[in-house]
Amino acid sequence: MQLGMVGLGRMGGNIVRRLLRNGHTAVVYDENPAAVTALAGETGAVGAGSLEEFVQRLDAPRTAWVMVPAGDPTEATVMRLAELMQPGDTIIDGGNSFYKDDIRRAQVLDAKGLHYVDVGTSGGVWGLDRGYCMMIGGHKEAVDRLDPIFSTLAPGLGEVPRTQGRGDRDDRAERGYIHAGPSGAGHFVKMIHNGIEYGLMQAYAEGFDILRHANSPELPEAQRFDLDLADIAEVWRRGSVVSSWLLDLTAAALATDERLDGFSGHVADSGEGRWTLNAAIEEAVPAHVLSAALYARFRSRQQATYADKLLSAMRKGFGGHQEPK
Amino acid sequence: MQLGMVGLGRMGGNIVRRLLRNGHTAVVYDENPAAVTALAGETGAVGAGSLEEFVQRLDAPRTAWVMVPAGDPTEATVMRLAELMQPGDTIIDGGNSFYKDDIRRAQVLDAKGLHYVDVGTSGGVWGLDRGYCMMIGGHKEAVDRLDPIFSTLAPGLGEVPRTQGRGDRDDRAERGYIHAGPSGAGHFVKMIHNGIEYGLMQAYAEGFDILRHANSPELPEAQRFDLDLADIAEVWRRGSVVSSWLLDLTAAALATDERLDGFSGHVADSGEGRWTLNAAIEEAVPAHVLSAALYARFRSRQQATYADKLLSAMRKGFGGHQEPK
Amino acid sequence: MQLGMVGLGRMGGNIVRRLLRNGHTAVVYDENPAAVTALAGETGAVGAGSLEEFVQRLDAPRTAWVMVPAGDPTEATVMRLAELMQPGDTIIDGGNSFYKDDIRRAQVLDAKGLHYVDVGTSGGVWGLDRGYCMMIGGHKEAVDRLDPIFSTLAPGLGEVPRTQGRGDRDDRAERGYIHAGPSGAGHFVKMIHNGIEYGLMQAYAEGFDILRHANSPELPEAQRFDLDLADIAEVWRRGSVVSSWLLDLTAAALATDERLDGFSGHVADSGEGRWTLNAAIEEAVPAHVLSAALYARFRSRQQATYADKLLSAMRKGFGGHQEPK
Amino acid sequence: MQLGMVGLGRMGGNIVRRLLRNGHTAVVYDENPAAVTALAGETGAVGAGSLEEFVQRLDAPRTAWVMVPAGDPTEATVMRLAELMQPGDTIIDGGNSFYKDDIRRAQVLDAKGLHYVDVGTSGGVWGLDRGYCMMIGGHKEAVDRLDPIFSTLAPGLGEVPRTQGRGDRDDRAERGYIHAGPSGAGHFVKMIHNGIEYGLMQAYAEGFDILRHANSPELPEAQRFDLDLADIAEVWRRGSVVSSWLLDLTAAALATDERLDGFSGHVADSGEGRWTLNAAIEEAVPAHVLSAALYARFRSRQQATYADKLLSAMRKGFGGHQEPK
Repeated sequence: MQLGMVGLGRMGGNIVRRLLRNGHTAVVYDENPAAVTALAGETGAVGAGSLEEFVQRLDAPRTAWVMVPAGDPTEATVMRLAELMQPGDTIIDGGNSFYKDDIRRAQVLDAKGLHYVDVGTSGGVWGLDRGYCMMIGGHKEAVDRLDPIFSTLAPGLGEVPRTQGRGDRDDRAERGYIHAGPSGAGHFVKMIHNGIEYGLMQAYAEGFDILRHANSPELPEAQRFDLDLADIAEVWRRGSVVSSWLLDLTAAALATDERLDGFSGHVADSGEGRWTLNAAIEEAVPAHVLSAALYARFRSRQQATYADKLLSAMRKGFGGHQEPK
Repeated sequence: MQLGMVGLGRMGGNIVRRLLRNGHTAVVYDENPAAVTALAGETGAVGAGSLEEFVQRLDAPRTAWVMVPAGDPTEATVMRLAELMQPGDTIIDGGNSFYKDDIRRAQVLDAKGLHYVDVGTSGGVWGLDRGYCMMIGGHKEAVDRLDPIFSTLAPGLGEVPRTQGRGDRDDRAERGYIHAGPSGAGHFVKMIHNGIEYGLMQAYAEGFDILRHANSPELPEAQRFDLDLADIAEVWRRGSVVSSWLLDLTAAALATDERLDGFSGHVADSGEGRWTLNAAIEEAVPAHVLSAALYARFRSRQQATYADKLLSAMRKGFGGHQEPK
Repeated sequence: MQLGMVGLGRMGGNIVRRLLRNGHTAVVYDENPAAVTALAGETGAVGAGSLEEFVQRLDAPRTAWVMVPAGDPTEATVMRLAELMQPGDTIIDGGNSFYKDDIRRAQVLDAKGLHYVDVGTSGGVWGLDRGYCMMIGGHKEAVDRLDPIFSTLAPGLGEVPRTQGRGDRDDRAERGYIHAGPSGAGHFVKMIHNGIEYGLMQAYAEGFDILRHANSPELPEAQRFDLDLADIAEVWRRGSVVSSWLLDLTAAALATDERLDGFSGHVADSGEGRWTLNAAIEEAVPAHVLSAALYARFRSRQQATYADKLLSAMRKGFGGHQEPK
Repeated sequence: MQLGMVGLGRMGGNIVRRLLRNGHTAVVYDENPAAVTALAGETGAVGAGSLEEFVQRLDAPRTAWVMVPAGDPTEATVMRLAELMQPGDTIIDGGNSFYKDDIRRAQVLDAKGLHYVDVGTSGGVWGLDRGYCMMIGGHKEAVDRLDPIFSTLAPGLGEVPRTQGRGDRDDRAERGYIHAGPSGAGHFVKMIHNGIEYGLMQAYAEGFDILRHANSPELPEAQRFDLDLADIAEVWRRGSVVSSWLLDLTAAALATDERLDGFSGHVADSGEGRWTLNAAIEEAVPAHVLSAALYARFRSRQQATYADKLLSAMRKGFGGHQEPK
């Protein structure tokens, strides 16, 4: 099946490669001509020098997967494609868009007879080989038509043991992709995925921080332990309740840099973690852990916060210059 | 190698069984004679009718694994065994003891020439087949002598991919057990394991709760989604960043009871989750996520808390009878 | 000075009354004619039977204070007034609007030569006598012109001790009102005020909850206390670090209903608490306490959450039917 | 009435001074002879050169108030006094002891016929003039006998408005002191007081931090505000729901140093905040806010935590070298 790809960064490029390797064809475009040239040389891929040419080279009904940075670049690309494409064509937003933007765009495109499909993908740099876990939103008609693409990109059953009791449930979930619902549903589910990811990561981070400080001089000497954190991460990978892919990554990192001296401690966050909390607040669902995980990242990027200084100012106020209490 | 086991509940019984299946022998005792009879019938196992007989039947240097409920029962059993056993013998506490109790007991036993080894185990009902992930504290001499036991009980390398870069690190971690440090270290590491477990579980719980309420009437109608949570859990098992054993369990539960009507919502907690926070506080390590996870369980067992009522009382105070704000 | 008031509920009505008592005059309107009649009978007040008549009865430059429910009613009233009023007139939104709505409306009104002033007020039912604490956003010109109104409505210096060191800072703050900044700034500051309020309330609520459970059967008998919470709240009112108006209200509530049996435990929340978190997230400022306070209210209105049930489901998965760990 | 005071630091010294000013007498002792000399010069005070002399100079039944640092110094002083004093005498621990230590000590003293009274005090440097808010634990007999002392030290009704509806409740609470319960109850209540104090402070701190960042470059330019935080703190002091003594202190601090440049951001914490959480955990009471407040202080004293570095390590693991997501 033919797919058009706009945006040939690592994600977009590897998605095309995984499709080509499995017999699909692609028309590719990127603002950077070198990226187009690099990929257009592979069997089954055709390059385009402009968005107009890109659309012309696609066979109707056309499918254009947009894989450019979320926010303004995605907005501009989707809206420009919407002008160039024909009724019955489909635009896929495979980036990390905000689901309310998907809902809005889908309405705009719907009025033009175009389909809009949002695909949240997890897998990152590992996807080319492992496959991409995909959460898809959009009209059933469009999503079903594109099934050969999604089926190829997905990890498939692999060596992961089957879940008992699924009966005749939709088997796409087992193969690593789902049609989550109407436009926006794909990115909504992906957003929550990332919110959970933040929480999981913070749970490990706090636990290992406590292990790390088990020899703190604040503790009575007889109650201190010098623990080997690399071995602890490793041992939990087998037979323990906390085994996970994130733990695998932790074990790998600690195996070669147990003190984590290679990191500054500044941790970035992306839109999904923030939007997850906005969604929780809108739904009135308590989200203590997911919030705390995000706030820890905010805090990691600051020193000497105004909040902390204000605590000291109050303490000075009621306790005098020496701050006794 | 011969092991004595006191306490033949599911955990103790299955530990013995896994040893017997692999050529070890056992002397077994339980307050309940039926439990002794049941196990003593298996090849390699010998039963005892009393703690005294139990000790007599063991060959020196004796090893007695205590697998009875944490707290008073463990304390009483360990102390009684300490009276019956001889210098050079070893007592293993395989339950969920508080690590400071381990440190204290080890000192008592040390004065008698006895070894004390604390073993934190994860794996529960799955251990007989999957093996037990073990975190061990105690003197090197005693832990090394018992290696044939631990090596058999552990999961082994299994099908879990090897971690790159471990080089010549202790290979016991890869096989599913570690000698974490002196007495108490085993239960300390197991305690943090459970604290992390609480945090991981709560991260999933909050995320799925937000997904569940994505069709909340609090939301604008155009922004609601009816999501299939069973399929979402399933799809994340393949290729996503949040895959884990806990997610596998979640997917299995949701496959047959997506609404989770089979559960009351009351969630128990055990000592380890609480002790983890005590340790964090003693070490002055922030543990927002692990705390929130524990508190969610506390809250799950209450209705109409006094705290909530006090909020309402204040609101009435400043807002008048109709509580407007 | 003359003020027009649209919306004669408790807040709007009392604001007018406080102005009338101090020599100002008012034109008043409400959808409910009875509310107009009730207030129009007081010296200095004139009623209107429609928004059109309301505007006609005001002297130029007109000032219309809108005190109707936030959201759609305020939006509709402001926009209708914007059609009826003349360049140089001012519309005040005294409700609990979202500050981004203020910013938007101010732009719309500005294009028509109208002023838009947003006033966040704290004080509620107590304001008629104590005065209203006001945080004001808008053009300096409009805010300055209305100073006689704000000065009268504000509490004034009262018996509150002066803050040392303010030097020649703006004395309006001491008298209970500030010009916080351009349109939206008033409601922004009021929003954060409410966010803090949530946090303060929750701090007291948790503390008293711990006091309340000091005789919990979970505790060793020798460490239980039966505490008199009404006396504790009262004693902290004098000389302690935690004295506050909220504590005064707590003491009053507990004096007559120490067990708080008069409350269900369900606690409402308003937009400001939620928007405060949205603002924190947008600014990347950690807000653990303010979040936790809001989530406690969300949780208070639920029983047996899906999140809690999912924890149980996982526990069953790894622990077997009896959920042992 | 005569009181013996051991420990003449600011707290102990000022307590004696407040008593002397109101006609009581005192025998005073401190390890530092200069402190004894300084105070013994005041009318009604007698100095002692040793603990033995201190006890000899007291009239039976003796009352010794211990006001030395919590922990080992208090323990040693109380135990030494217990050896020197006679049945019927009373030892007061006025410091910040852990309530479980009070319970233990009371049992030891009880066996000797001595009374043990624990007094938690709030008021710090302001107590000499404002009076001390006291929470008292111990036998009714001893507490009642010492009422003249407590009554004098307490703030009294002052200018604080009376709480309606207290009826015939114990009027000591209104005058600023309570007999909270048996030994330990005084420090238990004081402990929770401090836990609440942490929560209140953090609520203000977070709120002002959000106000401070309202002009963050992360925000759209049209939605930024440059706020005057000193004026905001001041305006809330009059008529608002969040008025409190801590807000008074905040307003005073910001009046002269709005940017709080005089503070490093490192915030200390004391035992009470930690013990409050331990108590909450023992009672199974959720304490999200009080925990978060303590953890914020822990975090304020660190840079580049191990937890944060581990997050980065995981991010690198799943996102590749460039850490894209």
